[in-house]
Amino acid sequence: MAAPMKVIDCDVHNMLRSSADLVPYLKEPWKSMIASFGVHMPGTYSSPIGVMRKDAVPPGGGIAASDPDYLVEQLVKPYNMEYAILTGGLYAVNVHPDPDYAAAVASAYNDYLIAEWLPRHPSFKGAMIVPVQDPQQAVREIDRIGPHPDIVEIMLASASPIPYGNRFYHPIYEAAERHGLPIGIHPGSEGGGISAPPTAAGYPTNYLQWHTSLSQNFMAHLISLVCEGVFEKFPRLRFVLVEGGVAWLPHLMWRLDKNYKALRWTVPWLKKMPSEYIRENCFLTTQPIEEPEDFEQLKQIFDMIDAERMLLFSSDYPHWDFDDPTHILRRLPEESRRRIFYQNAKELYNL
Amino acid sequence: MAAPMKVIDCDVHNMLRSSADLVPYLKEPWKSMIASFGVHMPGTYSSPIGVMRKDAVPPGGGIAASDPDYLVEQLVKPYNMEYAILTGGLYAVNVHPDPDYAAAVASAYNDYLIAEWLPRHPSFKGAMIVPVQDPQQAVREIDRIGPHPDIVEIMLASASPIPYGNRFYHPIYEAAERHGLPIGIHPGSEGGGISAPPTAAGYPTNYLQWHTSLSQNFMAHLISLVCEGVFEKFPRLRFVLVEGGVAWLPHLMWRLDKNYKALRWTVPWLKKMPSEYIRENCFLTTQPIEEPEDFEQLKQIFDMIDAERMLLFSSDYPHWDFDDPTHILRRLPEESRRRIFYQNAKELYNL
Repeated sequence: MAAPMKVIDCDVHNMLRSSADLVPYLKEPWKSMIASFGVHMPGTYSSPIGVMRKDAVPPGGGIAASDPDYLVEQLVKPYNMEYAILTGGLYAVNVHPDPDYAAAVASAYNDYLIAEWLPRHPSFKGAMIVPVQDPQQAVREIDRIGPHPDIVEIMLASASPIPYGNRFYHPIYEAAERHGLPIGIHPGSEGGGISAPPTAAGYPTNYLQWHTSLSQNFMAHLISLVCEGVFEKFPRLRFVLVEGGVAWLPHLMWRLDKNYKALRWTVPWLKKMPSEYIRENCFLTTQPIEEPEDFEQLKQIFDMIDAERMLLFSSDYPHWDFDDPTHILRRLPEESRRRIFYQNAKELYNL
Repeated sequence: MAAPMKVIDCDVHNMLRSSADLVPYLKEPWKSMIASFGVHMPGTYSSPIGVMRKDAVPPGGGIAASDPDYLVEQLVKPYNMEYAILTGGLYAVNVHPDPDYAAAVASAYNDYLIAEWLPRHPSFKGAMIVPVQDPQQAVREIDRIGPHPDIVEIMLASASPIPYGNRFYHPIYEAAERHGLPIGIHPGSEGGGISAPPTAAGYPTNYLQWHTSLSQNFMAHLISLVCEGVFEKFPRLRFVLVEGGVAWLPHLMWRLDKNYKALRWTVPWLKKMPSEYIRENCFLTTQPIEEPEDFEQLKQIFDMIDAERMLLFSSDYPHWDFDDPTHILRRLPEESRRRIFYQNAKELYNL
C-alpha cells in the first residue's frame, strides 16, 4: 500500500442543525425574523412576518387552515358563508421546471381535495390545479377532475414564463370551457422557478416591493388574454383574477382601448373593444382591496369598472392580510354589496 | 494533387437584397407592413405602423424631427412653446450589453446635442443620456455634461435588468442631485438587450400588448425607488416618469401605502408614507394620456393624485401617438392647465 497521502479538501459542506444556530449571531430585525421563519435561500419572495394568521392554527396545533372543521368554525359560520371556494396554495407548482413533477403534485392535490375536504362541509367548493407547463397533461387532468360536482374552478399561478393569452395555453382553455369551469389566476411564486422576473424591470429586493408589484402580473395576463383573442375563441370561458387588486383596472381598460383604436388591424380576430371582453369575461376578487383614505375615491373607481358586476368577495383566509367581510366595503350600497359578496359568485360558479 | 473531393456544404447564408424581396410572397396585412417597415428580427418590439408621424419628415426629406428648424416651425411656434425638452431616443442604449459601447454612444449623443441642437433655438433644452449599466462611467459623464446650462435632465430607459431603486444605481443619483438635474425615465426597448422580459408574466406576442404593458415598468421602478429609500438618501432628487401613463398611479399609491403599514419595519429607512415620497419627488408626463369616454372619470383620477402638482405636459413629437396640446386636457380648469402645461415644468427644470 502507498503511504498515506496528505490531502486538502476544498469543499466540505458544514451544515446548520437549523436556522436557529444563526440566531445568536444576528441583529434585529433579522434576529426575530429568522428566529420565527428560518433562513430563506433565494427562490421565492417570502413574507418576513410569515404569511399565516397566527390565530388560524387549529386548536390541535399544526398548519393554519389545515383542519376543515376548524376552518368552518373560524370562517364559514361566523361570517355566514354559504359557500367557500377552497383555493389551497399548490398552484405555485405551475412554475416548477419539471412538468411531470407538476402533473404528479397537481393530481395528488386534486385527489386529496376531493377526498379530505370537499365532503367535509356543504359550503366547500374546490379549485383544482393543473400542470399548466404541459397543456396536454393539464387537459387530461381537467377531463379527469373537472366533472366532479364540487370542483368549480381551475386555478393557475399568476407567476409564469409566458403570458396566459399565448396559444400555448389554448388547449387548457378549450377543456375549461367544455367543462364550464372558470379559470382563476392567483399570485404565487413570482420570480421563482421558471417564471419571468417578478417585474418588467427585473428583481426587486424585498417582499414589500414584490407584493406591491403583484398586480403587474395580472395586468400582463389580462392584456395578453384579450389581445390574443381568447374570449373570441372561447366565448363562454370566464377568468377570475384572484388577489391581484382592483383599482388598476380603469387605467388598463382605457390604455388598451386607446391603443386598440390605433393598432386594431394587428389583432383582426377581435370583434369588440378590449374593455368589453374584460367586462364580459373577467371577474376580480376583492382581497386585498385598495384602501384610499377617502372611500369615495374607491367608489369612483368601482363606478369606472362596473364593480357591481365584476367583483367577487374573497377573504384570503388564513393569510396575514385577510379582509374581514363585515368590515371591508361596508359603505357600498346594499345592492352592490349583495352582488359582490354573494350573487356574482353564485352565478359564475353555478352554485 | 488529390482528385477533387465531392462536397456538401450544410450552411450557406443566401441573403435578401432587401426586405422588399419578400413582399410579393406576403399576404395582407403583413405585405403592407413589411413593404413599409422591413422585416424585424427579434430584438425589440416595433410599431407595425411605424413610430413616426409621416408629416414630421422635414421638407428636405430624411428622418422625422431630425431638422431643428423644421421642428421649431412645426411644433414650437404653432403651439406657443416657451421651452421644449429634447429627449432624443438613444437612451435605449441603456440596455446594450456592453457598457463601454453605451458610454461611447452616450457621450457622442450628448456632444452632438450640445453642438447641433441646443444652440439652434432658445426654446431648446436637452436631456442627456448616460451608460446606466456602468454607474462609475455614468457619473463621469454627468460631471462632464451636467454643468451645461441647457442640459436640464438625465434620461434613462425604462427598460432595465434591475429596478431603478437598487443601490447599484445610487452613485448616479448622487451625481444627479449634486448637479440639480432631474432624472427622466422613458420607454425604450423593453424586452430588448439586457432588459428583463417586458412583462412580469414574460414576453407578449405583439406591439399592441407590449405598448399597453409599458406602464408596468414604470410601476416597478417607482415602487423600487420609494422602497429602497432613494428619496430619503437624495431628498432633492426628482424623477420624471415620461410616457408611462398616469391613471394607474392611485392604485399604486394605495396598494403601496397599505402594504407599507404592514411591513414598514422591513424598510426602516422610510420616514413618510410611500405616497408622500411619490407626491413630493416624482412627476409624470401626460402623453399618452388615458382617455375614458367620460372625461369626468379622468378628472376624478387627477384629483386622487393631485395631478395639478404632479403632471407635466408632453407631446411625444414626432411619434405616432402625439398628443396635441390644444386638444388634450382642454376641459381641465384654467389653473390646472396652467400648472400642467407650463408652470410645473418651469419650476422643476429651473427654466
